[in-house]
Amino acid sequence: METLKTLLNHKTIRKYTARDISEATLYQILEAATRGSTTGNMQLYSILITRDQDMKEKLAPFHFNQAMATSAPVILTFCADLNRFSKWCECRDAKPGYDNMQAFMWGVIDAVIAAQNACVAAEALGLGICWLGTVTYNTSDFINILKLPKLVVPVACITLGYPNETPELTDRLPVEAVIHSETYFDYDLSRINELYKIKENLEFTKRLLEENNLPNLARIFTEKRYKKADNEFFSEKFMEVLKNQGFL
Amino acid sequence: METLKTLLNHKTIRKYTARDISEATLYQILEAATRGSTTGNMQLYSILITRDQDMKEKLAPFHFNQAMATSAPVILTFCADLNRFSKWCECRDAKPGYDNMQAFMWGVIDAVIAAQNACVAAEALGLGICWLGTVTYNTSDFINILKLPKLVVPVACITLGYPNETPELTDRLPVEAVIHSETYFDYDLSRINELYKIKENLEFTKRLLEENNLPNLARIFTEKRYKKADNEFFSEKFMEVLKNQGFL
Repeated sequence: METLKTLLNHKTIRKYTARDISEATLYQILEAATRGSTTGNMQLYSILITRDQDMKEKLAPFHFNQAMATSAPVILTFCADLNRFSKWCECRDAKPGYDNMQAFMWGVIDAVIAAQNACVAAEALGLGICWLGTVTYNTSDFINILKLPKLVVPVACITLGYPNETPELTDRLPVEAVIHSETYFDYDLSRINELYKIKENLEFTKRLLEENNLPNLARIFTEKRYKKADNEFFSEKFMEVLKNQGFL
Repeated sequence: METLKTLLNHKTIRKYTARDISEATLYQILEAATRGSTTGNMQLYSILITRDQDMKEKLAPFHFNQAMATSAPVILTFCADLNRFSKWCECRDAKPGYDNMQAFMWGVIDAVIAAQNACVAAEALGLGICWLGTVTYNTSDFINILKLPKLVVPVACITLGYPNETPELTDRLPVEAVIHSETYFDYDLSRINELYKIKENLEFTKRLLEENNLPNLARIFTEKRYKKADNEFFSEKFMEVLKNQGFL
């Protein structure tokens, strides 16, 4: 079952060979992206293709200069796009009403479905991918550089290239940790201990704790990686973007 | 290339046979869901599994009584979930800071990646799927019925079952309509005409216009399917949910 194998063997690839991605291969990936489900078949997303090295350099600081942002041959930025659909409506004497949160959510979901289909297609074609979550951090900078009009907001970004590394599968919580039968079964200390046991006892985790001189993995997240003050700072920036782009 | 075929042949399936989905098959789908990319490997989502017929009947009105909501053997509701991760932090004497919009967006993206992986896996296993966008409409009702705690918001919902129909592929805009090279190339009347030509001239579209007694397809969207007043009503409800669940 090739498809399941592709899905189960997903690994983030951050190092790429010098080999470029042909237009034909990229087109297959983009076509797969557009065949995903989309709200009411409205296709409320746009995909920005970055191949130009100068553009990558310009965008890189806002991806916090992660190496993939300049070393990947292709970067795809997926945007919630209510502009094209609204323009179509206006061209047809129909009054669009898509400058609101509801429509934004459709666009986000459409964009992420398209992005994930692109990832699966890319991996099936022998490419490696890496998600850059940074588009929802420095969103206004991406809007400026990519010249996105109102009603367009970038929400997902992936780098693509031929793999130049062969990492192990990343750990995941057991499936039981994320599923709930019929109603939500909330987590207490004993269940948390059980579900996070494997993750907390990985050799990788132990190395991280030594490097960071912290007593447990959770504190690496709250004190180093995803700090409250940063999250609140970027939340405000993101709400400002939603306002400026016309959704709030 | 089986994977690409799976992606390119996606069709929404709304009618299912009486055949149930085995636990083993469902587990394969859920495992594929959890192997998708996730922000910082935090897995900020939960999946609610609905098999119970009474639960389906209870949820159905909030899916606007679409037939799939009660006829599908399994419904999966994917939630942005910052509760589990925050509970883990609290159990480890780490101070979580994930009650904000930034964290919500991570959860949404994680949840939709997992949902789309589940869809691809399901189709590879011979099942049919249908997205129910209604979870972002009547969100508070789903929260009540599924007993979702603070920091959990449903954002994607799919029905699963063995297909009892064989629809044609749904039309899509040409790939050129949704891609932009380096910077956004905005749409004017002549480009809109070109890109929407095929869609507007489908026999299916012509039938819709007759049935709705409207002069063009855009007006079916703005006057029948996705009306400004409805979108604004549900936007307010959704913002209220984000506030109540602790993200705003």
